[in-house]
Amino acid sequence: MIRIGVIGYGYWGPNIVRNFSSAEGAELALVCDKNPDVLKKVAGNHSGVKTVTDWREVTESPDIDAVAVVTPVSFHYPLAKSALENGKHVFVEKPFTESSEHARELMDLAAKKNLKIMVDHTFLFTGAVRKMKETVKAGELGTVLYYDSTRVNLGLFQHDVNVIWDLAPHDFSIMDYVVGEKPVAVSACGSSHFYQHENVAYITVFFDTSLIAHFNVNWLSPVKLRTTLIGGEKKMLVWNDVSPDDKIKIYDKGVAVSDRRDIHELLVSYRSGDMYAPRLEQTEALKLGVAHFLECVDNGKQPICGPEEGLLVVRLLEACEKSVKAKGAMVTL
Amino acid sequence: MIRIGVIGYGYWGPNIVRNFSSAEGAELALVCDKNPDVLKKVAGNHSGVKTVTDWREVTESPDIDAVAVVTPVSFHYPLAKSALENGKHVFVEKPFTESSEHARELMDLAAKKNLKIMVDHTFLFTGAVRKMKETVKAGELGTVLYYDSTRVNLGLFQHDVNVIWDLAPHDFSIMDYVVGEKPVAVSACGSSHFYQHENVAYITVFFDTSLIAHFNVNWLSPVKLRTTLIGGEKKMLVWNDVSPDDKIKIYDKGVAVSDRRDIHELLVSYRSGDMYAPRLEQTEALKLGVAHFLECVDNGKQPICGPEEGLLVVRLLEACEKSVKAKGAMVTL
Amino acid sequence: MIRIGVIGYGYWGPNIVRNFSSAEGAELALVCDKNPDVLKKVAGNHSGVKTVTDWREVTESPDIDAVAVVTPVSFHYPLAKSALENGKHVFVEKPFTESSEHARELMDLAAKKNLKIMVDHTFLFTGAVRKMKETVKAGELGTVLYYDSTRVNLGLFQHDVNVIWDLAPHDFSIMDYVVGEKPVAVSACGSSHFYQHENVAYITVFFDTSLIAHFNVNWLSPVKLRTTLIGGEKKMLVWNDVSPDDKIKIYDKGVAVSDRRDIHELLVSYRSGDMYAPRLEQTEALKLGVAHFLECVDNGKQPICGPEEGLLVVRLLEACEKSVKAKGAMVTL
Amino acid sequence: MIRIGVIGYGYWGPNIVRNFSSAEGAELALVCDKNPDVLKKVAGNHSGVKTVTDWREVTESPDIDAVAVVTPVSFHYPLAKSALENGKHVFVEKPFTESSEHARELMDLAAKKNLKIMVDHTFLFTGAVRKMKETVKAGELGTVLYYDSTRVNLGLFQHDVNVIWDLAPHDFSIMDYVVGEKPVAVSACGSSHFYQHENVAYITVFFDTSLIAHFNVNWLSPVKLRTTLIGGEKKMLVWNDVSPDDKIKIYDKGVAVSDRRDIHELLVSYRSGDMYAPRLEQTEALKLGVAHFLECVDNGKQPICGPEEGLLVVRLLEACEKSVKAKGAMVTL
Repeated sequence: MIRIGVIGYGYWGPNIVRNFSSAEGAELALVCDKNPDVLKKVAGNHSGVKTVTDWREVTESPDIDAVAVVTPVSFHYPLAKSALENGKHVFVEKPFTESSEHARELMDLAAKKNLKIMVDHTFLFTGAVRKMKETVKAGELGTVLYYDSTRVNLGLFQHDVNVIWDLAPHDFSIMDYVVGEKPVAVSACGSSHFYQHENVAYITVFFDTSLIAHFNVNWLSPVKLRTTLIGGEKKMLVWNDVSPDDKIKIYDKGVAVSDRRDIHELLVSYRSGDMYAPRLEQTEALKLGVAHFLECVDNGKQPICGPEEGLLVVRLLEACEKSVKAKGAMVTL
Repeated sequence: MIRIGVIGYGYWGPNIVRNFSSAEGAELALVCDKNPDVLKKVAGNHSGVKTVTDWREVTESPDIDAVAVVTPVSFHYPLAKSALENGKHVFVEKPFTESSEHARELMDLAAKKNLKIMVDHTFLFTGAVRKMKETVKAGELGTVLYYDSTRVNLGLFQHDVNVIWDLAPHDFSIMDYVVGEKPVAVSACGSSHFYQHENVAYITVFFDTSLIAHFNVNWLSPVKLRTTLIGGEKKMLVWNDVSPDDKIKIYDKGVAVSDRRDIHELLVSYRSGDMYAPRLEQTEALKLGVAHFLECVDNGKQPICGPEEGLLVVRLLEACEKSVKAKGAMVTL
Repeated sequence: MIRIGVIGYGYWGPNIVRNFSSAEGAELALVCDKNPDVLKKVAGNHSGVKTVTDWREVTESPDIDAVAVVTPVSFHYPLAKSALENGKHVFVEKPFTESSEHARELMDLAAKKNLKIMVDHTFLFTGAVRKMKETVKAGELGTVLYYDSTRVNLGLFQHDVNVIWDLAPHDFSIMDYVVGEKPVAVSACGSSHFYQHENVAYITVFFDTSLIAHFNVNWLSPVKLRTTLIGGEKKMLVWNDVSPDDKIKIYDKGVAVSDRRDIHELLVSYRSGDMYAPRLEQTEALKLGVAHFLECVDNGKQPICGPEEGLLVVRLLEACEKSVKAKGAMVTL
Repeated sequence: MIRIGVIGYGYWGPNIVRNFSSAEGAELALVCDKNPDVLKKVAGNHSGVKTVTDWREVTESPDIDAVAVVTPVSFHYPLAKSALENGKHVFVEKPFTESSEHARELMDLAAKKNLKIMVDHTFLFTGAVRKMKETVKAGELGTVLYYDSTRVNLGLFQHDVNVIWDLAPHDFSIMDYVVGEKPVAVSACGSSHFYQHENVAYITVFFDTSLIAHFNVNWLSPVKLRTTLIGGEKKMLVWNDVSPDDKIKIYDKGVAVSDRRDIHELLVSYRSGDMYAPRLEQTEALKLGVAHFLECVDNGKQPICGPEEGLLVVRLLEACEKSVKAKGAMVTL
C-alpha cells in the first residue's frame, strides 16, 4: 500500500485527491492546503483524511511514501526537492519546473535516491492520445512527415505565465510521446496585446530529419479549436478533440513521388482511400495516470512521463521564450 | 470599348477569356496560345475571335488596348514588359512576377507610360473577402490584433514552385487588403519531404504595431481547411471558405483588461455575445475583377490590386524564402 | 419560507434535492426513498436533512408545504393525490401521469384545494427554449408554418415505456410552450424490433390552422441528433441542441408567393439574408424551474408548465399510442 | 451502335444529350425540342446532330433505336407509348408516369414488344448509393430495421406537383434498391401553406416485416439536409449527401436484447465500436446510368430501374396522395 500526501487543493487538486483516494494500492493519507477553509471541503468529500496547512508536514511526514505536488509551477521545485530529500516519490503537475536547471537537479536527485518522479501530463492517458501512439508505433502512418497542432480559444489570461507556458506543455508532451523523435531546435513568434505576456504564439520545432512540428496557441480566439494533423508517408491522421465523436480519424490518403532525375518529369501520384475512426477507450485519463504512477513506484519502472520527458518540455518552453524575443530566430536545444 | 488580347489558354485562361468576352465595355479581340490545338477550343467557344500562336502578335498589335497575361509566372515579366512598351494596359495573373526587381521595373514603366497594371488577386472580389474588408474598415472589430490563416489540403505538387509561392499569394493579398497595415518583417519555417521544394510551411508576418499575422500552408493534409481567424479588440471574425454556408461569422466576443499597475491585480473581463453571419454577395469574383480592371483603365483610377499590391506580395514571398533557409530567422522587408 | 419534501432519490432526485436545498425561499425539510442505503448519500451531501423510507411520512407531514414527486411515472398519481389531499403543493416529474384521467383528477383536486401543481418540463427553462419562445412571441418568425423535431440516438431501452413516452414529452411540452397553438389531432407510426415496446416512432400533430408539427424519436440511431426546425412566414429557426455553440440560429430566409388566380403564373420569390445566433442564458434550467415553482406557490400564479400543460402532453401521448396501433390513422384529441 | 433520339432540352436535357453523345456504343442521332432557339444551343455544343421541333419525328423515325424522354411528367406516357409502338427502347425521366395505370400499360407494352424501358433514377448510380446497396446486400448491417430519410431545403416551389412528387421519387427508388424488401402500405401527412400543393410532408412506409421507412420532404427549410439513417441489427449506416467528404459512415454500433420471458429481466447490451467511411466511386452517375441502359438494350437484361421499379415509385406516390388527404390513414399498395 503506497501512502500518498497531496499538496494543493485548488482547481486541479480535488481530481488528484479523488483519484488517489479510490486507486487500488494507494492510501490517501494527508492533504495539505494553506487555506484552512479549503481543507473543510476535503473533509466533507473524504471523511477521515488528515489535513494540514503546512506543506512541510507532508514532505517530512514519516507516514507518507509519495507526494503529489498540485501547486502553481513556482512551488514545484522546492516542494519536490523537499519530498525527494525526505525519501518520497513525487507526482508533480505540468510543467515540471520553471527552469530546466531545476528540472535537471530534481531528475538527478531522484536518480541518486532511487525515487520516481512522474510529471502529470494527463493527456498521455486519454483514449485519443493512446490510440495515436499505438497507430504511429505500429507503423500504420509510415514515416511521420509533419505534426501540426492548433489549441486556441477565448482562454483565461494568466497573470504569471504566457500562452506558451499555459497551453504548449500539453502539445509538446503529446508530440514527444506520439512521434518519438527528439527535437533539436525551435523557432517561435508571438505577440502580447494587453500586458507583457504573449497571448498568441506560433511555434515550429525542428528535428534531425525532415520531420517538422508546429504549434498554434492562442488565448484570444472566438472559437475553440483543438486539432492535430499528423501527416505520414502512408496514411494521415486527424485528432479533433472538440468533436463529440470520431475524435480520431485515420485517412488512407497520400502521395507517392517517383524518383526521376529531371524534376519536370517527376511523377506524383495521389491516393485517396477509406477513412477509419477507431473506437476510443473512455476511462478517465487521470485514473490511468495515477495507476501508472503507482505501478512505477511499485515495480521500479520509469513512467512514460518521467523527469526526462518533463525536462524536455521545459527545455522546449525555454527555447520558445528565447526565440520569441529574437523574433523567430532558431534556438537549438 | 477596350479591346482585349489574352495570352495563355491553359487552366485559368478560359475563365479570363469568358469573362472579358462578356464584360460590358470590353471587346475580346485576340487570343494567343502556343498550342494550335488549344486555340481550336477558343474558336469553338467564342466564334469569330482571332487566334494566334505568337504572343508578340498580341503585345505589338495595334488593335489591342490591354493584354491579359495568363501564363506560368516565369513569363509574366517579359510579356507584361512588351505589352507596356507597346502602350497596352496589363492584367496579369498572380503572383505578379518571379522577383521584386522585375515587379518594381514593371511598376515604374507603367507609371512612366501612364498605363494600368492589375494583378489578378481574384479572392479580393469574392463576397467573403469584400465583407471582411467592409467589416474591418467600418471599425466593427476594433483594432485588429491578429490575422491567422490556414490553407491546407492534399494539393497538387508543383514542379516549379514550393507551397509558399503556390498558396500564400492568396492569403498575403487578402490580408493586405483586409487589414490595411503594412508588414515590416517575416519569419518562416518549412520542410520538403519529397524533392527540394517545401510542401509544408509556417509563416509569421510582423508589423510596426502589436498586430501579428500567421499563415499555415500545406500540400499534404488529409483534410481541406480554408480558415481565417481575425481577432479584434471589440469583435472577432471567422472565415471558413469550405463551409457551404455561413462562411463569415462575426462573434461579439472579446476580453477587456483593466489598467492596473500591479499585474496580479489585473482585471480581465470576458465578453460573450451574439454571433452574426452576414449574407454574402454571390456574383462570380472574376467577373467583378474584370469589371474593376476595365473601370480603372477607363477612368484612370489605381486598381485595388495594382502593381504596388502585387509587389508587396512578391516581397513577402522573397522574404519567406530567405527566412525558411535561415530556419525562421526574421527577414525585414 | 416554503418547506419542501422530496420523494425519490434515484437518477434525477439528487438534482431536485440539490436545487431545492440551495433555492432562495425554500427549506429542504425531508427526503424520502424506499432504499435506506440511498438515504445515506442524502445525509452525506446535505447534512442535517431528515430522511424517511415511507412516502406517507412526507405527504402527510405537518412540517411540509410542498412535495416533489421524483419517482417512476406509475407512482405520480397516488403520491401527488395524497400530497394534494393533505394540503401540499406538488412538483412532479414528467410525464405528469400515466393517463389523462388521472391528470384531470389531480388538476381538479388542486383547483378545488387552491394548490399549485408544476410538472417538471425542465427544457422550458433552458436558455435555448426561452430564446425560441421569446423569438416566436415577438413575431420575429411571422406566422409559424411547421415545427419539425428530431430526437434520436442509441438510447437506453426502457422496460416499462416505449420511445414515445420516453422522449416525446420533452418535445411536446417545448412545442406547446413555443408555438402556443393548441393541437387537435395526431397521426403516429412506429415499430418495435426487440420486444413489444416501439423503439422508433414518427408523429405528426395537426392544428386548426395549416400549422403542422412532426416528431422523430428513435432509440436505435448510431448518431445523436437533437434538431428542431421552425419555419415561419418571415424567418426560420434551427435549434441544434448537440452543437457546442450557436445552438439557436435564426435565418432571414423565406418565400413569398404572390396572389394570382392562375397557378401557372404564381410568382414565388425567394429571400436569403443574414443568419443570427443569439447568445443564450447559461443558468442551470432546473434552478430556474425550481425558482419558478416557488414563486408560483408564493404569489398564486399558474406555472408555465402547470396541470393543464402536463395534461396536454399526456393526451398527446395517449393519442399517439392509439394512432400507432391504427397504423397512422388520425386520432383527434 | 444504338442510335439515340432525345426529346426535351430544358433543365436536364443537356446532361442527357452530353452523356449519350459521348457514350460508347451509342450514336446521338436526333434531338427534339419544341423551342427552335433552344435547338441552336444543341447545334453549338454538338455539331452535326440533327434537330427537330416535332417529337413525332423522333418516335417515328426509322433511324432511331431508342428514345430518351426528358420532358415534364405529363408527357412521359404519350411519348413513351409512341416510341414503344414504333419499336424503340425508352429511357424516361423520373417519375415514370403520372399514374400507375399508365405505368402498367407501358410496362406491358414493352414486354409484349420485347423492348426495354429504363426510368432515370440517377441516384442509383452514385458512388454513395452503390456503396449502400453493396453494404446491405453483403449483410454487413444484418437485418435492416429502419430506413429514415430527410430531404429538405429552401426548394423551388413547383407549379404542377407537390413536394412529395418532386422529392420523394429519389428516396423511394433508393430505398427500394438498397433495402430490397417490398412495401405494403403507406401513411403520409402534409401541409400546404401557400397554395394547394403540399410543401412539407412526412411519409411512413410499412413492410410485411417490422422494417419501417420514413421520409421527411420539405421545400421550406432554412438549411439543406440530405441525410439517411439505416439501422441494422449488426451495424448502422449514415449517408450525409451534403457533406463534402465521408458521405457514407458505417457505425459498428447496436443493441442486443437477450430473450427472457419476463420483460423486467430483459438484458439489453449496447455495443459501440469503430466507425468506417469507405471511399466512394467518383464517376458521374448519369454516365453510368446511360451505360447501363445501353448495356441492357444490347444484351436484353432488365435495368435495375426498369418499368417495375418505376411503377412501384408511382404507386407509392399515389398512396401518399391518398393518405395525405385522409390525414395519415394507412393506404395499402
